[in-house]
This record gives sequence, structure tokens and C-alpha cells, in this order.
Amino acid sequence: MSERKQPLNIAMVGSGFIARAHSNAFHQAMHFFDTPFELRKKVLCGRTQSKLDAFAAQWGWEETALDWQSVVSRPDVDVVNIATPNALHAPIAIAAGQAGKIVFCEKPLALSVSEAEKMTQAVSGRPNLVWFNYRRVPAIAFAKRLIDEGRIGQVFHYRSHYFNQSGVDPAKGHTWRYRRDEAGSGAIGDLLSHSIDTARYLNGEITSLSAAAHTFIPGRNVDDAVMLLTKFSNGSMGTFEASRFGVGRRNGNGFEIYGSKGSLAFDLEDMNHLQFFDANDPPATHAWRNLLVTGPDHPYSTNFWKPGHLIGYEHTFIATLGDFLHALSKGQEFHPNFQDALQVQEIMESVHSSAVSGEWVQL
Amino acid sequence: MSERKQPLNIAMVGSGFIARAHSNAFHQAMHFFDTPFELRKKVLCGRTQSKLDAFAAQWGWEETALDWQSVVSRPDVDVVNIATPNALHAPIAIAAGQAGKIVFCEKPLALSVSEAEKMTQAVSGRPNLVWFNYRRVPAIAFAKRLIDEGRIGQVFHYRSHYFNQSGVDPAKGHTWRYRRDEAGSGAIGDLLSHSIDTARYLNGEITSLSAAAHTFIPGRNVDDAVMLLTKFSNGSMGTFEASRFGVGRRNGNGFEIYGSKGSLAFDLEDMNHLQFFDANDPPATHAWRNLLVTGPDHPYSTNFWKPGHLIGYEHTFIATLGDFLHALSKGQEFHPNFQDALQVQEIMESVHSSAVSGEWVQL
Amino acid sequence: MSERKQPLNIAMVGSGFIARAHSNAFHQAMHFFDTPFELRKKVLCGRTQSKLDAFAAQWGWEETALDWQSVVSRPDVDVVNIATPNALHAPIAIAAGQAGKIVFCEKPLALSVSEAEKMTQAVSGRPNLVWFNYRRVPAIAFAKRLIDEGRIGQVFHYRSHYFNQSGVDPAKGHTWRYRRDEAGSGAIGDLLSHSIDTARYLNGEITSLSAAAHTFIPGRNVDDAVMLLTKFSNGSMGTFEASRFGVGRRNGNGFEIYGSKGSLAFDLEDMNHLQFFDANDPPATHAWRNLLVTGPDHPYSTNFWKPGHLIGYEHTFIATLGDFLHALSKGQEFHPNFQDALQVQEIMESVHSSAVSGEWVQL
Amino acid sequence: MSERKQPLNIAMVGSGFIARAHSNAFHQAMHFFDTPFELRKKVLCGRTQSKLDAFAAQWGWEETALDWQSVVSRPDVDVVNIATPNALHAPIAIAAGQAGKIVFCEKPLALSVSEAEKMTQAVSGRPNLVWFNYRRVPAIAFAKRLIDEGRIGQVFHYRSHYFNQSGVDPAKGHTWRYRRDEAGSGAIGDLLSHSIDTARYLNGEITSLSAAAHTFIPGRNVDDAVMLLTKFSNGSMGTFEASRFGVGRRNGNGFEIYGSKGSLAFDLEDMNHLQFFDANDPPATHAWRNLLVTGPDHPYSTNFWKPGHLIGYEHTFIATLGDFLHALSKGQEFHPNFQDALQVQEIMESVHSSAVSGEWVQL
Repeated sequence: MSERKQPLNIAMVGSGFIARAHSNAFHQAMHFFDTPFELRKKVLCGRTQSKLDAFAAQWGWEETALDWQSVVSRPDVDVVNIATPNALHAPIAIAAGQAGKIVFCEKPLALSVSEAEKMTQAVSGRPNLVWFNYRRVPAIAFAKRLIDEGRIGQVFHYRSHYFNQSGVDPAKGHTWRYRRDEAGSGAIGDLLSHSIDTARYLNGEITSLSAAAHTFIPGRNVDDAVMLLTKFSNGSMGTFEASRFGVGRRNGNGFEIYGSKGSLAFDLEDMNHLQFFDANDPPATHAWRNLLVTGPDHPYSTNFWKPGHLIGYEHTFIATLGDFLHALSKGQEFHPNFQDALQVQEIMESVHSSAVSGEWVQL
Repeated sequence: MSERKQPLNIAMVGSGFIARAHSNAFHQAMHFFDTPFELRKKVLCGRTQSKLDAFAAQWGWEETALDWQSVVSRPDVDVVNIATPNALHAPIAIAAGQAGKIVFCEKPLALSVSEAEKMTQAVSGRPNLVWFNYRRVPAIAFAKRLIDEGRIGQVFHYRSHYFNQSGVDPAKGHTWRYRRDEAGSGAIGDLLSHSIDTARYLNGEITSLSAAAHTFIPGRNVDDAVMLLTKFSNGSMGTFEASRFGVGRRNGNGFEIYGSKGSLAFDLEDMNHLQFFDANDPPATHAWRNLLVTGPDHPYSTNFWKPGHLIGYEHTFIATLGDFLHALSKGQEFHPNFQDALQVQEIMESVHSSAVSGEWVQL
Repeated sequence: MSERKQPLNIAMVGSGFIARAHSNAFHQAMHFFDTPFELRKKVLCGRTQSKLDAFAAQWGWEETALDWQSVVSRPDVDVVNIATPNALHAPIAIAAGQAGKIVFCEKPLALSVSEAEKMTQAVSGRPNLVWFNYRRVPAIAFAKRLIDEGRIGQVFHYRSHYFNQSGVDPAKGHTWRYRRDEAGSGAIGDLLSHSIDTARYLNGEITSLSAAAHTFIPGRNVDDAVMLLTKFSNGSMGTFEASRFGVGRRNGNGFEIYGSKGSLAFDLEDMNHLQFFDANDPPATHAWRNLLVTGPDHPYSTNFWKPGHLIGYEHTFIATLGDFLHALSKGQEFHPNFQDALQVQEIMESVHSSAVSGEWVQL
Repeated sequence: MSERKQPLNIAMVGSGFIARAHSNAFHQAMHFFDTPFELRKKVLCGRTQSKLDAFAAQWGWEETALDWQSVVSRPDVDVVNIATPNALHAPIAIAAGQAGKIVFCEKPLALSVSEAEKMTQAVSGRPNLVWFNYRRVPAIAFAKRLIDEGRIGQVFHYRSHYFNQSGVDPAKGHTWRYRRDEAGSGAIGDLLSHSIDTARYLNGEITSLSAAAHTFIPGRNVDDAVMLLTKFSNGSMGTFEASRFGVGRRNGNGFEIYGSKGSLAFDLEDMNHLQFFDANDPPATHAWRNLLVTGPDHPYSTNFWKPGHLIGYEHTFIATLGDFLHALSKGQEFHPNFQDALQVQEIMESVHSSAVSGEWVQL
């Protein structure tokens, strides 16, 4: 039966943690989404043959290659998926884009706005995707639906946080994520970029911001933590805080949104729930509702399990891919794409600039 | 200005922890409730003069006395309040009742049904009160209102728990609460009696029960823990568990009630909140609502502080007294009174009997 | 690279919800567990060809068959996995066992103890598994570790609950789960069987019980709800409540365990967390700890994602299978197996018998 | 017995909500704190005789007066307590200070730094107090103890919030709190001043800040909401957000503090609890502990009820007064006093100035 499906051959560059999450999505998308495509894990590229062999065996990649350069333009490759440290995003994406491939890229998109612009141009005209996977947390997608339906009215406050404790672990300080040349930035790119994508998705454009960043560990050349004040085009005020020094938070990525008709709150460590306050309720039963966003009538609830049966981290990648494939089959534009990620990159650069100057920056 | 109020002279027997809670209520009722009475802390009775002196000085009692017998019939005493170990409840209540006094008694009412019946008879015809104070937790009173309004429909399950960890503290094992002759029972009288009063208040009469009780510490002659299966006259099923060996729970007294149109949950360690699930909500926003029961439109919310300003343990006594005084001024019957507490005592006795026999007991 | 792995050909009977969860595990086990076996989804059996075709296409089964009878003894089948309504468990398991296959069976094992005994005998001598998957919730496996390490000391109370609201949905009343001949029982087999397996795993054997069951909807011939009092061989007391009428609970499967040195609490709707109270902490910092059981040093935390990255329902099946394959490769016994499930079945039958007689039953 | 106590005659100006909270503290302090003073509610001052009569009758004030000017210098007045709208704080405090009285003042201290300086000077040399009552929430006092003991190590992040929804209620927009001439500011004085006092108490001095303020309702001349970035002298980063447009929050006043050895979190809507993460725990049991700060070994736990018995809003005033009286009896300095409140006022003024200029302000 699957022979009627259109094959999409994937080449992936990278074999680390995030490459596992991507691989898993390539495996699982067709189990949970009805798609006309058959995803084939064609070539896995990386720098270390033994690591590639082990990864390919575990995740079912057909071939391995040490030079992504020759792979990304292979005629039998339809999709190039970038799962490398940040510094490699641009050369791979540009090469793949110029070769006419569908390009998927891990976030943050680039080391700079200038890189991101070139990448966006290289992939333009072809379907593309950036793995800001948290838009597809069902609870976040449901928050979006409630907002779009007017359930929280005029937004007053958007309050974002992303805390983990990776920065206090001395062992992690030696990875690429703590080197400016490979990562571009620290908490800004690693954490805040997710927060900004989610904020744009839920609350629209940021019009101005004031930022401060700090490096707690002497000798590191990337920011350990960053905090912002923002104003949004919808008239709301915003604060953002992102830090690798949030001891006690493992993946504390969330928001609170306060509006005239209701409010919302979310944290990724409790990702199957969304807190919703409906100001239209009679005062005596006014309350924060602890929504278990596993159905019925919730985003992706017919794709995965039954109401009350939780999903996890990996499903955000699967749902992202499922939606991408649906858009691809319909010829529709998918978000978040390179253009979205470029806008996030512009905000990141303004954050850096404001943190240096101490001035508000208009966007 | 207060001269227009009718004085009520109180005699209290006892000067322990619960006597503090009662004294505080006598002090505070007129601050928070509009009442035509002026409560006067007239005589404090107890066994140890030095303890009485200190307590009277701290809480403003006018006189002290070592023999309650002569006090309870004094013509200048209007109310006798019993705050003693359980074994003294009956003699004091009977004497006070026979002297025509208004009688307030700490729970559980008595050591036995037979005692409780005599006490109830002695006070009948005069206003009386038993300090099952938790009916006046605003969240519980609000649960009652929701139930009475039909908001949870037909009840299927009533699930009660009362856990504290008093039993594991060797120091406490020497108090009167661990001696059958002074306490009557252990967890049954101390904890389960509250649970039963709340259950009768919220869910009506228990029609049959099966119980098991256990004493974990060899040598103790009262139960450390008790558990029940019950059936209620409204067709619902019930479980109760009460234990002094609930390590980690300080005052974990609560319930879950599941009904056809909604459900409720409560725990005294979070006493300003009530959990309410409304099955009439559209499925996508079905959720447990975490109600902060501090107003507006909540029981007692106009008596105490403003919405969002929490109240504590002592306010349950103040509200009990406030309601009693209101009923007294209107000539209305107050609940829970001795008659209510007698019914609780009958259930406690059935629990004991079922725990011994291993048989279901019809009530 | 995978050619060095030993193939295990699987035949599965059933294509409903639970068959999806099993299929997913067959797919994913080798991605998350290092196993010397290669699982092959060989034959899918069922009653409706169109349904089989769709399921096989979606989940990658090589063949389909309408008669399980001929499949379960095929020489190219190594494992028979039973994912059917309960009434078919026995014939399939017995046939597969007699054919010498490795047998996996969905819970509850059987319609009766007598059936379960025959099944257990049929599979004895060959590796076998019953899908009491919740033992492999990392939080539950970690609770087991804490208990085994003596962290909670002597257990006083074991308090189990399993509430969902499936029973109030009129549409569901027509499925096989509400027919005695196909399901054997209602909440007892569907929900309580899980609770009993978990209790045996964490707290050991139940020695006696008193039960009550009830059917809220007239005309149904299975129990809608059941409640128990139990005594355990370790001296602890227990209550269990399982109901399809727990409105507001989608998959509220959990426990509280109170011990002399600490306590534990868990609920499947928050499955990545375990509540742990350590009585050895100094009193001022005594508290329930909300453990996020995603690593480091937690069960399965090296198999799935990183600390702080949640897992969902499906991972309990994957981990069950991963552990089974590990045991198989080492020639070790796996639990829970048919023998464990037979013991659960015996308790279920005692529950039924006590509910009918109103008597305590010794086990 | 009480005759041995030294009387302190109090004059209070104001009879609104906060005057009730103060009156209650004057009543209750001697019930819960062992103090050598006897507080006498001597004179109540206000503008409306009928309101004064009712308040005095309810709360037991001996006299009433319409002109505070003549009262604050009466020789039989020892303490002047200011419970008026903000604009009256300065004239009353200055008059009372010049008359040599002990002065208590509701927060925020003044309309401006200049006023606050004059007030502080007027009361200097005599004991004084400003009702930043939340320092005496037991959970906050316990947070302070943990910090002082080094339990959270070097602080990285201080994250403060104070949300209520008072601003969205049109009825409240007409009170003095929404008029600049009577209130001085909006959310800044009403809410943020508390947040700043708590931050200084727990985390030390703010060295620089960047702020933004906004008025959501056209025509109002005070700020509805304010947000800040701050740097502290201990090297930590901070964000503050205070708003009357936090729909769904009734009194959502709290903080998160992340440090190298542990972290803390608190919210006033759950005021009996403190969240504490101890990074010294072994990783497998790393967790947020939900401390129920009602004893044993917690601040004020021997003053109020027993462990597990909650306290409410009013107890923060009682404990503030209890500590003040203790300091008074020992001749010790009490905090927070006018000097502390002056420093808060200076920060408030910097917030205003930064919000206007868009520049960082050094303190």
C-alpha cells in the first residue's frame, strides 16, 4: 500500500542529541500523520565514521558520508536536514538551497542576521522549515487557538521565561554551545530564540526592546543569561528572561499572558497542560483551569493517543514534520520557516545591541 | 456604642491548644460578624492555677476557677464552652445542660453513643454547638453551595482522607489522645469524626459501611488508623481513610467528590482553594478549576479580608461562632449541634463494630 | 550493521488502540534500547481486511491474515502478541503457547482464574510478558528503587486510585468493554488490574480484602466502579478505588504510600513526576519533593531524551519491551509475566467474590 | 495580671480596609506574642463621624476624633498609626514625629522622595515602622533565613512579580488609588513598592535599573503597570513586573530566586508554602520541595497555631507588630522603618525617571 506514496529522500548532517530527535520524527511522522509522502532516511553525514555507523544502525539510515558538501546536491536527495552546531547551518543551508533542495534547519538559524539573510535567500522559492518545534506543543497550539478566537481579549502582559541549569555544570562548559565562533551566542541563541519564536506566534511583533545580558563564569565568551523589556505592536508589555543559571529548572520554558478577557500560562516541564483563566466565567467560579491538552478537541489529539494519555518532547518534532508534509502536499506555506527564523535572528541581534548600548532599540 | 449589645457571659473549661482557638473566636467574632451580642470571656476553668493565670492574662479572661462544677451553673454564666480532653465532655455538658446553659462542645462529642445520647438530651431545648469547625472553611461551604445548586449532578463517588503524622512522634504518644479512657478512640475520634461530619454535610447519610482499624505501635490501646468502605443514601460509593501515620501530611484533611455534572476536590493544607471540574464546559476547555475561595461571591468573603487575601485555621472557628450567633439572634436552629454530633458518634461506633467483626454494618 | 542482530518475527492479533501502542513499541524499541534482536513486524491478524490493510500500511506490517489460528503456529513466527478484546486472550495464548511461541498478552490476562491458569501453563517454559506497562513509567520504577533502598522504611498505608470518565460517555457503553462475555468485568479488569499489578510491584502481596462494586447505569452487566480495603503481608493497610465514573479524570491512575521514613505519591496524568517526602530531612525543610523523573540517575533516563525532556504514554510500552528483550538476551526471567498476571487475576476474582458476599476474603 | 504591662496608647488615622488590618493587629499582638506592652486603642481619627462610630464600635476604639492634628500631639497618645490615603502620610507623620510619638505608617511612605526625606527626619530618634508587612510572611522570613545560611549560594537571578486585576474593574478606577495627587503613583506605589522592599530584604541593594511603565486606560494619570530590569550589588540580575492588569491574579505577589546552591520561589496566593530547590541533594532526588511553612522550626510557628494549621493575611501585620514590640522592649532597631521606606521611595523615583527617559539609572 505504501508504494502509492511519494518518496522523499532525506540527507541529514549531524548525529548528536538533536539529530536523534529529528531522526525519530522522520521515523514516526507517517505513523501519526496521514501523509502522501514516504520519508526515506537516505544519507547521514558527519565527521566521525564510527559515530555515524552506530547512529545509522540505531536509527535506520541507509548510507553514511563524511562530506556533506557532495551529499547535499545529490540528485537522489530531496530534503537536507541540518542538525549541526550553529556555525555550520549557513554553509550547509546555502549549498542545499542552491542545489534546490527542501531544507530543514535546527534553530537558531544562524550566527548573524547577515548569514541568516543569505540562507533565507538561498532557500527561497522552495519549501523550508526551521525546527522551532515548540509551536507544536499541543498546549501552545491550543493557546494560539484560544487567542485567535478572542478568548483572552486585548493582551496587557506577555511574560516569558526560559530557565535551565546547563550553565552551572562545568562539564558542559567545554561544548560548542559555549564558544562564540561555533554557537554565535549563549542563552540568547540556545534559549531566548525559542522564546521569541513562541512570542511572535502567540502575541505578534515586538516593536522595541531594552536588554541586559551577563556572563556569570569568567572566561566564557557567550552570554549565560539575558533579560528583556519589550513592547509589542498589539500594545502589550513584555518581559523575557532566559538563563542557563536557573538552578532547579531542567527545561523551564514558558509564558504567562494576561488579557482583558482571560489569561494563559504554560511551562514545558508540564507540557501536556495549559493554564487558562476565563474572565467571562461568573466571579464565584473564576479560576485558573488546568487544561489537560490531550483531547478531545485539542490540536494533534487525534494524531497521537487518547485523551488522558500524555505525549512527550519528541512529539513536537513529529507534529512539526506532520504539518510541514501536509502543507507540502497542498502547496501551502509552512511556518516557522527561514523567513520566520530570520526575523527571530533580527530580534536576537537587537537584543545583543541593546545589551551592549543600554539603550532601547526600535525594531 | 457597644452598650446596646446583649452580653453573653462565657465560661470555658480547658486551656490547651483548642482552648486557644476557641478563645480567639470569642475575641474575634464581633470584629468580623455583625452580631447583636457582646461576648464576655467571664470564667476560665482548669486544673492548674498557674496555667490558668497565664492563659487568662494572654487571652483576656476575667476570672479563673479550678472547679468547673460550681462554675457551669453560675447565674452569671450564659454559655459553657467545653475544650477539655474527650472524657470530660459528658459530665460538663450534662451539668451545663441541666443548668440551662447554652453549651458549646469540642469534637468528638463523647466517648460513646450512650454518653452522647445523654448529653444531647441534657442540652435539648437550648441552643448548642459542636465544634466541627471545618464546615465553615469557605471552600467547603462553597462546595456545599455548588452541590445544592446541582452543579455536580448525581454523585458517584465520595472519597475522603485525613492524614497527619502525629502518631509517629514518640513524644505525642504520652498525651491523653493515646489513652482509650480519656480519648475514647484514636484516629477515629480525632480525625475520622471530622471526615464524617463533612461527608454528612456535603453528601448526606451513610447507609452502610465496612471498616478496618489498626494500631501500628504495640502497646497503644487506641486505633492509629482506620479505613472504610461506605454506601450513601444518594446512591454514591465512598471510601474514607484516616490515619496518624500519614508521614508527610501535617493536616491533610480533604475529599474528592465525583458527580455526573462535575466534581470537587479539597485539602485543608491548601484551605483557601477548592478544585472544581464542570462537565458542562465545552470539552476543549474541560479542566479542574483551582478556585481561590476568598471572594467575591464566596461564603464569608465579606466578613474577612478582600479577594486574594488568605485566611487561616482560626477563621473556621470565628465563622462557626458568627453563624451560631446569627442563628441565636434569629431563633433559628444551628448546625452542627449535639444532635449532629450524636449521629457522627453513632457512625463512629459502627466503624468500631465493623472493624471488630469484619462485617458490613447497616446504619 | 543490523545484519548481526537476531531477527524476531512478530505476529500480532488485533488492530485497535492498544495494537497501535504495541506496534509503536515494536518499532521504537531498537531506537532507544541497545538490543541484540531485530524485531520484524511480520503478520498482522484481525477480522476486517480493510482495517488490517490500513493499519499494516500505517505501521509497517509485512503481511495481514484473517485467521490467527493458522498464523500463531507458523514456523516463521517467533513472537505472538495478543492485542484483542479480553475474551480472545485465552484461545490465542494457549494456541501460541502450545506452538512454542514467545507470547505477549494485553492485560487483564483472562476472563477468569481458570482460563488464566490454562494460559499460564500453556506458555510456561517459554519467555512471556503481560502488558502491565505502567511498571515501566520511570517515576514508578524510581519509586520501586526508593522503596527497595529503604528510603520510606516500614509502609503504613498504600492508597490506590484509578479514575477515568469513560463510563459516563453513552457512546462507549456499546463497546466490548461493557459486555461481560467479552470483557469479563468492567472497572475491575480495565482499571483495577493495573492498580493491583502496581501495588504488588511496589508493596508486595495482599493477604486479605473486602470489596464493593457497583454498576451505575442500569442494564450494564459489568461493574462501573469498585472499591477495596486490603491488608498487605508487610503489615500495611490499603484502599483501592477504580471507577469509570470519575468525571474530570482522564487517566487518573496513581497511588500514595506512607512509610515510617518517607512517603510517595504519583498520578499518571502527571507521569513524569514523582512526589517524595523524606522524613530524614531536617524538620524545617521537610517537604514533598516534586521529582521530575527524566534524569539524571533515573530509570530509562539514558534511553530516551535528556533531563527535563518529557516522555509520554507510549514510552512505557517501549521500556517494557526493552527490558523484556534484555532479559531474553540474558536468559533471565522477565516480569510482569503470565504468572504475575495470574496472581492479579486471582485477586480480581477475590474482589468479585467479596463484593458479592460482603465478606473479607483471605488470599 | 495584665496590670504589670506597660500601656501604649494608640491613635490611628484612617478607617478603611487597611485600618481594619492594623486594628486587628493591635488586638491580636498580645495574644500571639509575649510582650511587656499593653496596646490600647485610644483614639480613632477620620473625616466622617458615622463611619468612625461604626468602626470604633466594631474594633473597640475608645474615642473618635475628626481632627487628627489635635490628636497626634496629645500627651496620652504614645503611638500614631497612619492608615490613610498616601497624600496624608507626610503631614501626619511629620506632625506626629515632631510631637515625639512613635510613628507607624502604611506603605508606600510618601508621594515623593522629598516628602519621604522630611518624614524620615521627623521621626528619627524615635522608634518607627512602615507596614511592609510581607517581610513577616513566615515563608518569606524563612526564605531569608535559608539565604542567610548560604543555602542557595551565589544568587544569579531575582525574578519578582506582583499581579492583581484591580485595574480592570471600572468601579475601582474612581478611588483615590487612581489619582496622582492622592496616590503619587499607581502600580508603582501600590504593588511595586512591596516587591522592592521584599527584594532588598532578600537580595540586597539594586545598583541600576531600566524601567517601562504604561497606563492602559486612557484618562488615568497613574501607571497601571510597570516592568524593570535591574542589577543587584551581589552580582545578580533581576526582573520586576507589577500590574493592576494581571487578570486572574488576585494578589499574585511573589518571586523566584536562582542561586548556585539552590533556588526559591514564592507566591502570596499560596502564602503558607515556600518552594525550595536544594542543589546539594543527590541528583536523583533533586526536586523543588513544597515546604509548608507552619512549623516546626519555622519563623512564627510557635506564635500562631500548630504545624499544618494555616495562617492568613492578617498574621503578617500581627507578626510585624510583635517583632516591633520585641525590638522596642529591647531598645533595638526595627526594620522596615522609615529609613528603609525612604530607600524604597528612592528606587520608585528612579523607576519613574527611567520609564520617562528610557535610560538605565544608577542608584
